[in-house]
Amino acid sequence: MTKVVQIGDVKIGGGNFAIIAGPCSVESEEQILEVAESVRKSGACILRGGAFKARTSPYNFQGMKTEGLELLLEAKKATGMPIVTEIMSVNHLPLYEDVDMIQIGARSMQNFELLKAVGRTDKPVLLKRGLASTLEELLLSAEYIMSEGNENVILCERGIRTFERYTRNTLDLSAVPALKEQTDLPVIIDPSHATGKSSLVESMAMAATAAGADGLMIEVHNDPENALSDGAQSLTPAQFDEVVRKVKKIREALD
Amino acid sequence: MTKVVQIGDVKIGGGNFAIIAGPCSVESEEQILEVAESVRKSGACILRGGAFKARTSPYNFQGMKTEGLELLLEAKKATGMPIVTEIMSVNHLPLYEDVDMIQIGARSMQNFELLKAVGRTDKPVLLKRGLASTLEELLLSAEYIMSEGNENVILCERGIRTFERYTRNTLDLSAVPALKEQTDLPVIIDPSHATGKSSLVESMAMAATAAGADGLMIEVHNDPENALSDGAQSLTPAQFDEVVRKVKKIREALD
Amino acid sequence: MTKVVQIGDVKIGGGNFAIIAGPCSVESEEQILEVAESVRKSGACILRGGAFKARTSPYNFQGMKTEGLELLLEAKKATGMPIVTEIMSVNHLPLYEDVDMIQIGARSMQNFELLKAVGRTDKPVLLKRGLASTLEELLLSAEYIMSEGNENVILCERGIRTFERYTRNTLDLSAVPALKEQTDLPVIIDPSHATGKSSLVESMAMAATAAGADGLMIEVHNDPENALSDGAQSLTPAQFDEVVRKVKKIREALD
Amino acid sequence: MTKVVQIGDVKIGGGNFAIIAGPCSVESEEQILEVAESVRKSGACILRGGAFKARTSPYNFQGMKTEGLELLLEAKKATGMPIVTEIMSVNHLPLYEDVDMIQIGARSMQNFELLKAVGRTDKPVLLKRGLASTLEELLLSAEYIMSEGNENVILCERGIRTFERYTRNTLDLSAVPALKEQTDLPVIIDPSHATGKSSLVESMAMAATAAGADGLMIEVHNDPENALSDGAQSLTPAQFDEVVRKVKKIREALD
Repeated sequence: MTKVVQIGDVKIGGGNFAIIAGPCSVESEEQILEVAESVRKSGACILRGGAFKARTSPYNFQGMKTEGLELLLEAKKATGMPIVTEIMSVNHLPLYEDVDMIQIGARSMQNFELLKAVGRTDKPVLLKRGLASTLEELLLSAEYIMSEGNENVILCERGIRTFERYTRNTLDLSAVPALKEQTDLPVIIDPSHATGKSSLVESMAMAATAAGADGLMIEVHNDPENALSDGAQSLTPAQFDEVVRKVKKIREALD
Repeated sequence: MTKVVQIGDVKIGGGNFAIIAGPCSVESEEQILEVAESVRKSGACILRGGAFKARTSPYNFQGMKTEGLELLLEAKKATGMPIVTEIMSVNHLPLYEDVDMIQIGARSMQNFELLKAVGRTDKPVLLKRGLASTLEELLLSAEYIMSEGNENVILCERGIRTFERYTRNTLDLSAVPALKEQTDLPVIIDPSHATGKSSLVESMAMAATAAGADGLMIEVHNDPENALSDGAQSLTPAQFDEVVRKVKKIREALD
Repeated sequence: MTKVVQIGDVKIGGGNFAIIAGPCSVESEEQILEVAESVRKSGACILRGGAFKARTSPYNFQGMKTEGLELLLEAKKATGMPIVTEIMSVNHLPLYEDVDMIQIGARSMQNFELLKAVGRTDKPVLLKRGLASTLEELLLSAEYIMSEGNENVILCERGIRTFERYTRNTLDLSAVPALKEQTDLPVIIDPSHATGKSSLVESMAMAATAAGADGLMIEVHNDPENALSDGAQSLTPAQFDEVVRKVKKIREALD
Repeated sequence: MTKVVQIGDVKIGGGNFAIIAGPCSVESEEQILEVAESVRKSGACILRGGAFKARTSPYNFQGMKTEGLELLLEAKKATGMPIVTEIMSVNHLPLYEDVDMIQIGARSMQNFELLKAVGRTDKPVLLKRGLASTLEELLLSAEYIMSEGNENVILCERGIRTFERYTRNTLDLSAVPALKEQTDLPVIIDPSHATGKSSLVESMAMAATAAGADGLMIEVHNDPENALSDGAQSLTPAQFDEVVRKVKKIREALD
């Protein structure tokens, strides 16, 4: 049995299944409030949204930064949902005081100074697997956090880099049972980044649930075609609602 | 909706879900009959077993060859299950007359002469994805078979080669919805070769089912520890029985 | 020191360095004769050319087949160069009687029946590494040939499949010293397939030479833009002449 | 022609070839002084050495940190060689004032905050390619540095992660000509990390030189067997001396 990590009032692990949803990037007050409200109604229990964005090119949208964080906190207040958002630098930590769970992105999985810094807080940490990181390396990065005293770590598989080009990355779903053989930390799946295609998210969300994941992290946007980042992999609120419905059926079958 | 491929009395595709099971290699009359009977009782509807084996080293067990084929046919007679077994050479085709489905193994996915040869028969063909083949290449290999007139092709994802070392290969489960966007051929999953570890098979079999696969191919051995090949990934009959039970629950939840 | 493999009058290995050159596919009498004559003048000592082609799609040019073999033999007669060409099926072996070296292509590296069949001849065999094959697997495939009695095997690294997309494949040049630590078979490099870009061939040919390769295999076409296959990676005769000149300089520096 | 980047009195690029050498980690005053002196004599012109180390596990040796930096500065003073050493955190920048070139390690290639921070200095930056980063991503990370005003960037290929297990990583030497088609920044090769085996370093150093690299970065240790990190890939001073001799021969042949 995995251990329980508590994010606000929400529990993940130990039999508790949680769906995290929200847009790739916070883009405006209207957008984050609308998406937050809709995913909450569908059954998400934690709100995600990027404020500081890790983008491959310096010329891409870099996120709304502190303003984005404020909008997330506003959405938290409006909906009652705890929030998770990525951190990019040790020096931004003070800004994350009211954030419920700190996300370490795939590109930061081996940013050891950052791992140690969040390890010195008591905040839940969502640690994403690097694009070319083995499960052993993921576990050792978790160890960097825990060895500083913070054991509230949730692992997230979000697709690895392979030769296949139909999907953005290759979802390594065997990571779920493989990690559970080696750790009691909760393991969640992000089918949005893993596939990079909204049309594949439903199927992979159901598969992840059946595989025994402790939760899902899914990108939802109120207007995917005009999203400032990752529109191709974002579900509409209606699509997300359908995914949650089907995931619940799988969960019931597992009981 | 995928098309239906019929193997003996068994249908795969078009809503029909089928479980193929059996040992990696046929090893003796006793072994194949015992495994065949037990997987049939648990709910498998097609028997698998290797007679001519594709082994990386010439010094490994190469299969019982024609004697293995005869034992498979005996097991077919005893249990009433249609059989599937791998072919290694165009010149072996005459030996496969009573085999119900011919398997093209991962290492033969781009053996174009072999593809064309089975394409000139009317036998169902189980085409496994190569270890480093893209989905596009898999579909083009299916095209080699179909362009010769044989449209009874079933695609099988069995894990791709990546940097991860905990598992033997990396199961690319997104291949299921990705292939269904591009073809109406049935798609099945082989969690045994994909993971290489019997402890991960159950979880991946359930995930594959939830992802929408049309069937599963699972290695079962009556004595995995002493198997002549692939023992580490083979289920015992009792483990297989449990997997089938859980897969059925997932199937029911999907209806 | 590597062992010597003799192809007609040409030696590879044991300090003998050989350049194999010619078009991807034999396309016409005029083409193969023109290319053969030009590469011979520049310093190539073995002529390559595809007659039976392994193409990913059944709808691509499949080679001139037996007619292509005849044109290669004509070019051999005209230039005095021994020839190497790929074999696709065990059943084509009788057609290869006058071919000096048989090539096992990357997609056939684990076509074990084919390996055993060429192992029962005494012809030199050029064994190309599979796209996702480890060096260990390449050596075991060579073992399939040698265990049948034919020790005239030359290994060829031609690029492996990775996530990088600028090049067609990734040339694994460390294969040269790595293989030499494990075998005394000659090792050659094919920079054309490895990079897929004619602009990168010169640099990689020089690097391969400096790394200690026993030879090179380079695609040359008299009209790359209109080549029926692999035009993007084919050198013009003038470019090839320049490559040979620079490779010779590296060879001299190594003495 | 690539642009010239100047590190102390040493030029890299624009026809200037430079060899960087030294131990993986600074371990003691004696060790760094001894190695520095020996590599200088053999022909290295920049000294490398790790003070803050990026280690996969928190339980591995993490480097001598500030003390290591001081010892590097001492070795610089003793030998007159400029030094390069890796930075792990934005907050360590003040400690690097007297360091001649700052190294961004493979695991930090997409630590965008760190890239921007070194971009706001005028120090030469050695940017290593990430283990699973495409050349396009490497160039975009360089862009992060340059867009802040610092154009003194040197790119370093140090092996990418593939399925091959004989070597620690797979050296992608085609990166040299491929990068030179896309940028005028100098490109150097690190054969030590790329292969992970000291026995393969000489061959790959020679190949990199022949491929047109602007320099090399090679790990040298006075006692590899007892090194605190990366001993298996470290050359002895005598081996390094031999490598430099052979690399010079290749350089001469290129002129």
